[in-house]
Amino acid sequence: MSLARPSRFVDQDRLWRRHEELARFGATARGGVNRQALSPEDAAARLQLVDWARPLGLTAKSDAVGNLFLVLKGRDAALSPVLSGSHIDSQPTGGRFDGAYGVLAALEAVEALLAAGLRPRRSIEVVAWMNEEGSRYAPGMMGSAAFAGARSLADILAVRDADGVSVEAALACMPSFPPVDLPRPVHAYVEAHIEQGPVLEREGFPVGIVTGIQGKRTYRVTVTGEEAHAGTAPRGERRDALFAAMDIVSALRRLTDDPEGLVRFTVGAFTVRPNAPSVVPSSVVFSIDLRHYDAGILASLGDRVETVCETNAGVCHVAVEELSRADPKSFPVSMRDRIRAAAGALGIPHRDLPSAAGHDAGYLHLACETGMIFVPCRDGVSHREDEWAEPAALADGARVLTETLAGLADCAP
Amino acid sequence: MSLARPSRFVDQDRLWRRHEELARFGATARGGVNRQALSPEDAAARLQLVDWARPLGLTAKSDAVGNLFLVLKGRDAALSPVLSGSHIDSQPTGGRFDGAYGVLAALEAVEALLAAGLRPRRSIEVVAWMNEEGSRYAPGMMGSAAFAGARSLADILAVRDADGVSVEAALACMPSFPPVDLPRPVHAYVEAHIEQGPVLEREGFPVGIVTGIQGKRTYRVTVTGEEAHAGTAPRGERRDALFAAMDIVSALRRLTDDPEGLVRFTVGAFTVRPNAPSVVPSSVVFSIDLRHYDAGILASLGDRVETVCETNAGVCHVAVEELSRADPKSFPVSMRDRIRAAAGALGIPHRDLPSAAGHDAGYLHLACETGMIFVPCRDGVSHREDEWAEPAALADGARVLTETLAGLADCAP
Repeated sequence: MSLARPSRFVDQDRLWRRHEELARFGATARGGVNRQALSPEDAAARLQLVDWARPLGLTAKSDAVGNLFLVLKGRDAALSPVLSGSHIDSQPTGGRFDGAYGVLAALEAVEALLAAGLRPRRSIEVVAWMNEEGSRYAPGMMGSAAFAGARSLADILAVRDADGVSVEAALACMPSFPPVDLPRPVHAYVEAHIEQGPVLEREGFPVGIVTGIQGKRTYRVTVTGEEAHAGTAPRGERRDALFAAMDIVSALRRLTDDPEGLVRFTVGAFTVRPNAPSVVPSSVVFSIDLRHYDAGILASLGDRVETVCETNAGVCHVAVEELSRADPKSFPVSMRDRIRAAAGALGIPHRDLPSAAGHDAGYLHLACETGMIFVPCRDGVSHREDEWAEPAALADGARVLTETLAGLADCAP
Repeated sequence: MSLARPSRFVDQDRLWRRHEELARFGATARGGVNRQALSPEDAAARLQLVDWARPLGLTAKSDAVGNLFLVLKGRDAALSPVLSGSHIDSQPTGGRFDGAYGVLAALEAVEALLAAGLRPRRSIEVVAWMNEEGSRYAPGMMGSAAFAGARSLADILAVRDADGVSVEAALACMPSFPPVDLPRPVHAYVEAHIEQGPVLEREGFPVGIVTGIQGKRTYRVTVTGEEAHAGTAPRGERRDALFAAMDIVSALRRLTDDPEGLVRFTVGAFTVRPNAPSVVPSSVVFSIDLRHYDAGILASLGDRVETVCETNAGVCHVAVEELSRADPKSFPVSMRDRIRAAAGALGIPHRDLPSAAGHDAGYLHLACETGMIFVPCRDGVSHREDEWAEPAALADGARVLTETLAGLADCAP
């Protein structure tokens, strides 16, 4: 590759500026981003991506679940495309890099390939998957799940947000582009992302080659008691949904308390009704997010969730729904070797590491040869407004991505 | 009194119909009422009260905190008035009787006095106190607290609801009436109310003479941790505000667990942020409602709340604010005797009992001779959409109230 390497056309300043500009859509007062899936902010951010892509000759398309594709046509229309991207929706108090980086790095890679005078044999598509975060519509990774055929379109369209707005209704508010099939064949997928953990920063590696993704099971638990007056109802006669929910969560904390600290058990959403100071709560709905690298441990803990809830609900009623289940995944060695070789050729220090967070790449892994490139983020922090990554690290990741895509799409002058 | 008793003009059907008609304002699908203080529904219900009062010759007035008075002028303008009423705001999923009954019973009593051809020496004012429930603006009993001089008008006007709307701004949306001083002298106050407990129904008494009110202390507790990613942050490195809040509430449950079952300890409001399934919660704000009949026990438990919160917050930060403190109250024996005599003269079975719930009468007790009349409610249930009282019991309570007011206001033909 030497002098002909397209990655030398990766422009660190342009890539950084685009992060800043994309962060305007849903910007929070404290420097973060609140860009919910299929919101007006999401729509505006999509139009911004298309604005950047059009002068490069890319064509915007979208499929029935609202994934956005920016297509660089390949020389051979009969071949399935290479995809690269991530998502542009965020957590309610999210940052500028989680998701956005993967989309902007893929766009930067395509721009570098074109600047190097290369044309791919396979089409390269920059993709922004619909609703990765799952905070407006649970569970997340809707777009990539539908693309990989892991979840039906009809199921996804019927999901409603807290205000009762369905995915179908929200999709109708998004800018429309020429349609493309869902699902459809794909040759390979590479996703760049901030690590969301402390390893690369702590050990000084600008790039990580992701070996696989932690497995994850999610649940919604509904505890139902009975409203009562805070002044009159004696404790023994109450059916207090909040106290029952707390007893259940305590038992789940004991269940998941491993000495190694490898189990990830989170109750992130917890909503009490009627939520009035002088009324004994009648219901609590809470989320469970359970993750582990080991498929056996994840299966065994996850299978006990419902029983633990039921045996600790006391005088209240409890209902447990499993919302999603993703077993731990290993990306193919062939792809990891390809990314490692690209980093090595560029002289960029790198190490292998697993992903603790879930990613759209987990679903694409079901559909094609898939890999991920990590870059460090400050203090390993993400899903927070002060999430941060260094411009140089973002550019290094984009360079490795550029070389990887050049090979996968068989680029030539 | 015998044949001349004004209470024989109490009209059970009219009283019942007015409960049904008032319940239209804020009616819920399940037959209850959601009429928040100073809401459009509250405004409409006020206008309905005025519509009923005007043909009787009553004059509507209001004071700077939004209490509504329907004034029947007395023969001697130099004497301070007798007040009777309650409140018309409700819990978010409240019923048709809690509060509304006391206002409608007072209106019925005035109507009966007039029908009997009586005129009071002291003015009688039917009052609807502003924001008794405290669910939109905490803490409640704002109107009666201001009237009794227990809370400053400026403090109350500055309180904001969850949407940031101040009491002052909400008051500007209420129908306006000729103003009356706040505070001002008052001769006596009698409040009719559903019991909100099971005693009268269980023992078959249509009327209860209230001996006093349970004491109550309320708090707002804010637990602050740190957002983190559900997949990456190990348990040992998290500052999970939800788990810390649960540990605190567990300790408070142990503190307040009395063998006699007399302590009332309720966590009714409990709000988690950012409340997203895959984000470790960064903050929880919850309410504490603590009540007891015994002043010493209430003081001792309440004084330990802050320390218990602090010693159980783990790696999180906790802040405790005491929002309100009302010591247990005993209504004067003179007033209890007066109400008991009225019930006795009418041959209505009655018993003395304390109030487990707080009432506006608790504040009026600071300003004048005060008493309360209870009527039974089904299963002792209140603060629920299926709250229920029988028309005959409501009328019996109104009869006792009529005779009591006739005496207090010195009515004569």
